[in-house]
Amino acid sequence: MTIAFIDGGVTAPAGLRAAGVAAGIKKNGGLDVSLVESTALASAAAVFTTNKAVAAPVLVSREHLAATHGRARAVVINSGCANACTGPQGMQTARLMAAETARAVGCEAEEVLVASTGVIGVQLDQRKVSAGIIEAAHQLSPGNNAQAAVAIMTTDPFPKEHAVRCTLDSGASFAVGGMAKGSGMIEPNLATMLAVVTTDAAIDSAVLRLALVEACEDTFNAITVDGECSTNDTVFALASGASGVSIDQGTYAAFVEALREVCMELALGIVRGGEGATKLVTVHVTGAATYADAKLCARAIANSLLVKTAIHGGDPNWGRLVAVAGRSGSAFDLMRARVLVGETVMFEGGRPFDERAPLAAAHLAGTEVDVTVDLGMGGDHDATMFTCDLTADYVRINADYRT
Amino acid sequence: MTIAFIDGGVTAPAGLRAAGVAAGIKKNGGLDVSLVESTALASAAAVFTTNKAVAAPVLVSREHLAATHGRARAVVINSGCANACTGPQGMQTARLMAAETARAVGCEAEEVLVASTGVIGVQLDQRKVSAGIIEAAHQLSPGNNAQAAVAIMTTDPFPKEHAVRCTLDSGASFAVGGMAKGSGMIEPNLATMLAVVTTDAAIDSAVLRLALVEACEDTFNAITVDGECSTNDTVFALASGASGVSIDQGTYAAFVEALREVCMELALGIVRGGEGATKLVTVHVTGAATYADAKLCARAIANSLLVKTAIHGGDPNWGRLVAVAGRSGSAFDLMRARVLVGETVMFEGGRPFDERAPLAAAHLAGTEVDVTVDLGMGGDHDATMFTCDLTADYVRINADYRT
Repeated sequence: MTIAFIDGGVTAPAGLRAAGVAAGIKKNGGLDVSLVESTALASAAAVFTTNKAVAAPVLVSREHLAATHGRARAVVINSGCANACTGPQGMQTARLMAAETARAVGCEAEEVLVASTGVIGVQLDQRKVSAGIIEAAHQLSPGNNAQAAVAIMTTDPFPKEHAVRCTLDSGASFAVGGMAKGSGMIEPNLATMLAVVTTDAAIDSAVLRLALVEACEDTFNAITVDGECSTNDTVFALASGASGVSIDQGTYAAFVEALREVCMELALGIVRGGEGATKLVTVHVTGAATYADAKLCARAIANSLLVKTAIHGGDPNWGRLVAVAGRSGSAFDLMRARVLVGETVMFEGGRPFDERAPLAAAHLAGTEVDVTVDLGMGGDHDATMFTCDLTADYVRINADYRT
Repeated sequence: MTIAFIDGGVTAPAGLRAAGVAAGIKKNGGLDVSLVESTALASAAAVFTTNKAVAAPVLVSREHLAATHGRARAVVINSGCANACTGPQGMQTARLMAAETARAVGCEAEEVLVASTGVIGVQLDQRKVSAGIIEAAHQLSPGNNAQAAVAIMTTDPFPKEHAVRCTLDSGASFAVGGMAKGSGMIEPNLATMLAVVTTDAAIDSAVLRLALVEACEDTFNAITVDGECSTNDTVFALASGASGVSIDQGTYAAFVEALREVCMELALGIVRGGEGATKLVTVHVTGAATYADAKLCARAIANSLLVKTAIHGGDPNWGRLVAVAGRSGSAFDLMRARVLVGETVMFEGGRPFDERAPLAAAHLAGTEVDVTVDLGMGGDHDATMFTCDLTADYVRINADYRT
């Protein structure tokens, strides 16, 4: 089995078309309505935000997946307005988006999945989004993946797309593609941002959901920009079946691996494009008593303002890693703990090796930074989280997001 | 019973002297060794960090309080180096600080409490700190409270001091004073920063500890700058007894109230002086199912980067308050929740009142900001947290703290 990068993003798999248009929802006139369509009825699955203040499109998409038992023809997404905290009118708008898309592509409203991203607590303009959907349906094409990926962006500095072809030992092959948006409000808690992954493998929707959850755990669920889990976080998966390759017991592992590779690239793209980010930071936690402890500590470090600002400044202030590990709630033994910045051991056996600070500083000067904390509990449990540095630009972007 | 502000900070109570000197520990030559001395053996109590990576001075102070059953003659504090993650050598240095102070003021080493603040993982220069202690002991005076308060500062923009006189209905009175340092690594988790509170009331050390814990809960434990709990956080209390007023069942409540007032002023000073802070933010959470839920949600909001940056920018992005409440883990009912910015209801009954955004923006333009989230659970449990806005200056300060 081999997995190789291919072009085409969300429309790389056969049987998929996409479009992205400007409907005037974004104040700056950018693309803001994105459509992904499977030419045949597809198997569909999703993971959603765990936030209790769940947005209207999430409620509607959940209803639709339940009604169809995991089948869909299209995913419609608008940016520029989250349609969250918008009450009955917001629910009506989310349903309208599904109905309008269904009319345009020729399917049932329940066969359309809906997502929104942008400002919370503002009503989405029904007239604008409807007109955008009609226009996007006209532009559906296997070549318009890039426009679709741009149309879901908010403060993202660049679009996130990836696709691979997985060739089985039998010679048969299928493709997996995807697109994502991220930037702020990124924290692992089931689904953590907006993404659409697609495949032309033929797969039962229950198995697709299982594979999606598995692929998310160490990709979308292992990233954080600012510790926030939004009201709208969603990952959709659509399987057109157009390759004719069926996923069964023998090919399931290959499918998950291909799916994970796409999810990982998109997830790392979200972190690299985190608001104001200048560095990709990989946090390893080892020697934990349990996996839960390892992930708890890795998440605390990845969300620590003091760690993220020190890394931004290239300051080898490794003591902050110890301080966060100590307060994280994970079991921790200071005398047996170890801290590494890059490959350099800065703390071990209860004592510092601060004379090595120049080595640590040299590592931190790069754009890809690795830090490791061994909790000293002697366990072989570990976890990895991906995050970015915290910069003055993050503050600037978020201090006047609306205004 | 009346409580009135008085001058004098940590030496306002009778029987207390203080000093602050420059010992060359701080690179900039600022005051960095602080001494507070009770002329008679005092009742003493403390609350310490809950961080598992606990610093040497915390370990030594704990030992000393246990050995003396809560008695002390002096508190010695250095800034510029936290003496944390410094192994056996760091323990030796912390013990040396106590021994040197004991020699200088004429008491047992166990009767000295020690604290340090500054960079983690760097050894504290024993020669410098010893010389500083000898110099500080020479300068001990009831009039040197201001120097002592300055000498515990790290990135604090201003010193924090406060004192009150509590006059009982009988006409007898006692004083409570204090000083604190804060800035970064501030998050409520038992003790959360460095503070020394003093009194000339006569009080048993076990009762003093009880009063201190009680006074901390809605003051030092209700503030956060950046969600970090440090390796060194400590609040010390010293009671000289020099006023001759004894704290018993009849006067305990008055004592706690006076102590709380001093702790509250110091705590709010820490938030106002938070790294880069321009606004004091009060977060109220009401309508919670339990007190724990109320505090959990208030803490999540007070630590939310998206909330703190929006407030910094004066952006009435109240939807972020709902999003954080929804992800906080507290029981939450979106349809019965309410969000207020200042006095203005922005969300109620599941729908937004975004047309009121100009009113919210006007409130956010001030330097004292109030936000309220009612979780809609119908409970009468509430909690209040104090925090500051998150600014580009916070990033700048922490990106090059060491270098």
